[in-house]
Amino acid sequence: MPSFAKTNRNKVRRLSERGVYDAETIYAIVDEALICHVGFVHEGQAFVIPTIHAREGDTIYLHGAKASRLLDHARQGESLCITVTLVDGIVAARSAFHSSMNYRSAVLFGCGRLVEEPAAKLHALAVLTEHVLPGRWAEVRPTTAKEVNATSVVAVTIDSASAKTRSGPPSDDEEDYALPIWAGILPLQQGFLPPVPDPKLTEQLAVPASVQNAGHGRGSKP
Amino acid sequence: MPSFAKTNRNKVRRLSERGVYDAETIYAIVDEALICHVGFVHEGQAFVIPTIHAREGDTIYLHGAKASRLLDHARQGESLCITVTLVDGIVAARSAFHSSMNYRSAVLFGCGRLVEEPAAKLHALAVLTEHVLPGRWAEVRPTTAKEVNATSVVAVTIDSASAKTRSGPPSDDEEDYALPIWAGILPLQQGFLPPVPDPKLTEQLAVPASVQNAGHGRGSKP
Repeated sequence: MPSFAKTNRNKVRRLSERGVYDAETIYAIVDEALICHVGFVHEGQAFVIPTIHAREGDTIYLHGAKASRLLDHARQGESLCITVTLVDGIVAARSAFHSSMNYRSAVLFGCGRLVEEPAAKLHALAVLTEHVLPGRWAEVRPTTAKEVNATSVVAVTIDSASAKTRSGPPSDDEEDYALPIWAGILPLQQGFLPPVPDPKLTEQLAVPASVQNAGHGRGSKP
Repeated sequence: MPSFAKTNRNKVRRLSERGVYDAETIYAIVDEALICHVGFVHEGQAFVIPTIHAREGDTIYLHGAKASRLLDHARQGESLCITVTLVDGIVAARSAFHSSMNYRSAVLFGCGRLVEEPAAKLHALAVLTEHVLPGRWAEVRPTTAKEVNATSVVAVTIDSASAKTRSGPPSDDEEDYALPIWAGILPLQQGFLPPVPDPKLTEQLAVPASVQNAGHGRGSKP
């Protein structure tokens, strides 16, 4: 996969050695994250809204109800900022100054357009459903034309992006390594607890494949 | 604790029954989250940057290196949007349309000001360190005047905020409950794996209290 050109917009300024621009690294972060944070400007004020996203090629799909302010802005074609962050651990250094987090984050820029054609909307809703829970689309009751109509779908073509990552042990000042202070990493893991069946299930049903496999293989999309 | 006035800026528009405005609920979300996403406007474009935050009363502290664009904007006193999101689970409904996430999110607005007085900066850095790992500040090598000087600290006074939450089982269409489709919740849990000592530890050191207690008691600050 190609890389994004480094411009004034996507350039990683702080700790620039942590910045990466290749689509493969960036898209793996986007695909692994369950949600993103979308930034838009409304009357000069930045708004940051968490929402479900899904990627297909260089397109990010967002969806919501028709009255959403986020989607109102997205459909107007203004440039959005879509940020995705995975926190991998706490870096406990010997000094507060060098203490940090291990993380993988991606910042994407692109303009939204409303997806209006019903088949294209239905496809995007399938991609969104599959992002959250791969295999679920085929298990649920088919989506109706009325539901498609009640949903707004926006497609954002990514035209600039970068990622920033940190991993590994603390980087302490050379003279601090001799201090009798414990240092290391506290790895953070986001995992699923056992599924909780809806109390309103009307019969005993096996836990479906999508739910059984949740969390496996995230980030492995082409 | 008081509530924030509902205005055009912080009003929860979509699924407004999920919106809450009381500081107690909002601050519990802010305190539990390890990181936030900060939105600012640069030349008309929204930028969304993940960063560590910490709350003290109605103030959010942010910190970073002196050359940070985020902190440049924050110190100029423009109104930032600070969003914090905790994802609690996947809601697997009988239809894609009613499938959702369980979450707690908070959106805060306020203007930043640079903290310049060294003692006040040192205090803010302690609050930030303690947010990530309570008890760690007393364990690390004391922060030097040079380190304080090399760090920018911004204090954002929260002047408007709201939270939005969803919890509980799916809410399906009445006629869908009879379908033989499994539905329920996949609870998501973010937890710590066992700590990984820095390979450069020069002696055998016990895992300190801050690391042993990581993750306990988050969100319980006054």
